[in-house]
Amino acid sequence: MQNHQQHVQICFDCAAACEHCATACLREDHVMMMRDCIRLCRDCADFCKMCGSLTARDSEFMRQFMVLCADVCDACANECSKHDHEHCRACAEACRRCADDCRHLSASA
Amino acid sequence: MQNHQQHVQICFDCAAACEHCATACLREDHVMMMRDCIRLCRDCADFCKMCGSLTARDSEFMRQFMVLCADVCDACANECSKHDHEHCRACAEACRRCADDCRHLSASA
Amino acid sequence: MQNHQQHVQICFDCAAACEHCATACLREDHVMMMRDCIRLCRDCADFCKMCGSLTARDSEFMRQFMVLCADVCDACANECSKHDHEHCRACAEACRRCADDCRHLSASA
Amino acid sequence: MQNHQQHVQICFDCAAACEHCATACLREDHVMMMRDCIRLCRDCADFCKMCGSLTARDSEFMRQFMVLCADVCDACANECSKHDHEHCRACAEACRRCADDCRHLSASA
Repeated sequence: MQNHQQHVQICFDCAAACEHCATACLREDHVMMMRDCIRLCRDCADFCKMCGSLTARDSEFMRQFMVLCADVCDACANECSKHDHEHCRACAEACRRCADDCRHLSASA
Repeated sequence: MQNHQQHVQICFDCAAACEHCATACLREDHVMMMRDCIRLCRDCADFCKMCGSLTARDSEFMRQFMVLCADVCDACANECSKHDHEHCRACAEACRRCADDCRHLSASA
Repeated sequence: MQNHQQHVQICFDCAAACEHCATACLREDHVMMMRDCIRLCRDCADFCKMCGSLTARDSEFMRQFMVLCADVCDACANECSKHDHEHCRACAEACRRCADDCRHLSASA
Repeated sequence: MQNHQQHVQICFDCAAACEHCATACLREDHVMMMRDCIRLCRDCADFCKMCGSLTARDSEFMRQFMVLCADVCDACANECSKHDHEHCRACAEACRRCADDCRHLSASA
């Protein structure tokens, strides 16, 4: 239960970082270079919001969802880590943390 | 900006409390008495997730949304405060905090 | 592309049926008997909205998501088909159609 | 009720058009020119999904939400109509239809 509450917060923190990063990328001069980042942040924000919701509501599907959510977070973290912007760095970190916690919780009984 | 980050967290905390409360209400023996609570928690969870997202992405519509979100949070807080369950008490508190912060931020320039 | 447009509509139709069914279940006299239906409709509505969105935006994660979405739709259809309410019958039908289309599309190259 | 079912479909059609338009804009060569379109499609997709959901679940907040949703649809339609891409034209049309229906329904008793 304690673990679940923490996971919910980690998911929503990641969603917030992704929403912020997508907007900030759209405002960069070199928006062309940020296409993949915007695209992945859009997906990752939605996955993390849903992962947080399913966990908070103790859904029977939350563990299967976490497995997929971890992959989306990985993809977003990998793309964000290619860029030097502070919002990308923060987003990559939030995504890695969320991916780790998704894998950890989905593996627990 | 600092205020916005804090608001995002308050919104997502409220969404988590509402998702949890709706599930817990469905598991109560007297689920009949919890209908309104489940209904309002369902709406409030969605409003607060969206409010957190719009704030994190710095949407031009966030202030108008906060005004409406505050009303939804009030309605949910009022219903939850009629019940003695710990999940209802926690949800009412999260809703009131979110309503206050929505009103505070939407009124700021 | 044609198939994708159709899938988006099937997903959103299912989401609408689930949202409607959850509300209608909450209004039934024997809400106690409808707990599982409400719980599953809540999850299924969110999964189908996300499945429709990922498909409409041509997300690289849509096929993996469809596999999981099909399972959620099955679970909701199975529960809804236990009840005689018209909203449950309509929801079960929408869920089965969505599960089929998720499996069909996720298997296509 | 008939009107509500139709509104749900109009909302979800608009959400699908916005999700598709945002992705297509990100793939255009002149992505720089499409920033505002991507930003507004992102918001409008979320508003329309929520408007469809609130209507399908017969939420007490749906009318107030429609008023705001109509403004978001207008803003997205105005931006999309500045561009010649087929996805922008289709999105503008879906947004106008949704804005009209939101205003029509929110004004009805």
